[in-house]
Amino acid sequence: MTPAASGPATGPRKRGRPARTSASEGPAARDRILTAARGEFAARGYDKTSIRGIAKAAEVDPALVHHYFGTKEQVFEAAIELILAPAMGTPDAVHGSREGAGERMARYMFGIWENPVSRPPMLAVMRSALTNETAAAVLRGMIERRVLLRMAGELDVPSPEFRAQLAAGHLIGIAMLRYVIRMEPIASAAVDDIVAMVGPTIQRYLTES
Amino acid sequence: MTPAASGPATGPRKRGRPARTSASEGPAARDRILTAARGEFAARGYDKTSIRGIAKAAEVDPALVHHYFGTKEQVFEAAIELILAPAMGTPDAVHGSREGAGERMARYMFGIWENPVSRPPMLAVMRSALTNETAAAVLRGMIERRVLLRMAGELDVPSPEFRAQLAAGHLIGIAMLRYVIRMEPIASAAVDDIVAMVGPTIQRYLTES
Repeated sequence: MTPAASGPATGPRKRGRPARTSASEGPAARDRILTAARGEFAARGYDKTSIRGIAKAAEVDPALVHHYFGTKEQVFEAAIELILAPAMGTPDAVHGSREGAGERMARYMFGIWENPVSRPPMLAVMRSALTNETAAAVLRGMIERRVLLRMAGELDVPSPEFRAQLAAGHLIGIAMLRYVIRMEPIASAAVDDIVAMVGPTIQRYLTES
Repeated sequence: MTPAASGPATGPRKRGRPARTSASEGPAARDRILTAARGEFAARGYDKTSIRGIAKAAEVDPALVHHYFGTKEQVFEAAIELILAPAMGTPDAVHGSREGAGERMARYMFGIWENPVSRPPMLAVMRSALTNETAAAVLRGMIERRVLLRMAGELDVPSPEFRAQLAAGHLIGIAMLRYVIRMEPIASAAVDDIVAMVGPTIQRYLTES
């Protein structure tokens, strides 16, 4: 594809290959696309996000988005890998001493949701999955492959994936009431008060046979 | 408003008042509107439902919808009262012996979700609330006023509304994973297995100080 005319020259052209400027191609552009995709999906949800909108936000040609990522579904998959990256660390919260593992996991997830930078994209991923079949399938596949397999490998209980999903479902449901529907008093409750109640539940699901 | 020409005559007109036919006005028409509204919100979600679409499904004039219910928001409120009516019975599941109350509540809610007639409208209400601020406010107000006040009056624990919301959040989150995102193995798990794990959690939230 034809590189944009802007950006610094990078020396004599190799024969047969167009000059690449960091503004229009290459790893920096790829990163900008991914960051733009994350922002677009977070702000608009899956349905209302388009390749064109992502390309515009990243200041690249839409064809470059397809080049690096493929279809809208595949862009979404890459974007939510980025968005959910902090949550992928959840299993590490389960490492170490079994004692208090439930509280650590609950506190870890609430840490992500309480952070005003990481919360909107995560809620947008959940909302997209709850309203769009394609988005749901992408999220499902990613969580089944990445998070729960890892976690299940750590858990010493029967049906570990089932237990992990009970735990995740509990936390997700609380997050929906607190951050999205904003029901009182749970919306204004102290995280410590929620963790005090919910931590032992997560503990039982993840560690008790 | 002018009644439709169809339907049985109902005797001599009272002076000054147009004949009413059950097909176009009156309690039967009001019921049809409410049923149509429930179906439209269930099938399309809040955003994509319109007064015109509801009127068409109910075979009435859009003005009649406004006449009986008011704005789209008010139609939604009436429709979800209808949709959530079974769930309003949840506090009764908490009545009686404290022992097993948690399991009764969990089993009661899963009974509603497992029913292929009652599930789609309930999930549609949740999805609407999760994606539309107006719908969220309507649901929030209704649940705060109707369900949780009643339940909180029954519960002998500190912060009963908070406890009730922890319980509701847990069940809603499991329902989201099972019925909407359809994550395995929780999507195919036996309700008995879910209730066996979750029942004691609900029990603790609702009854243990």
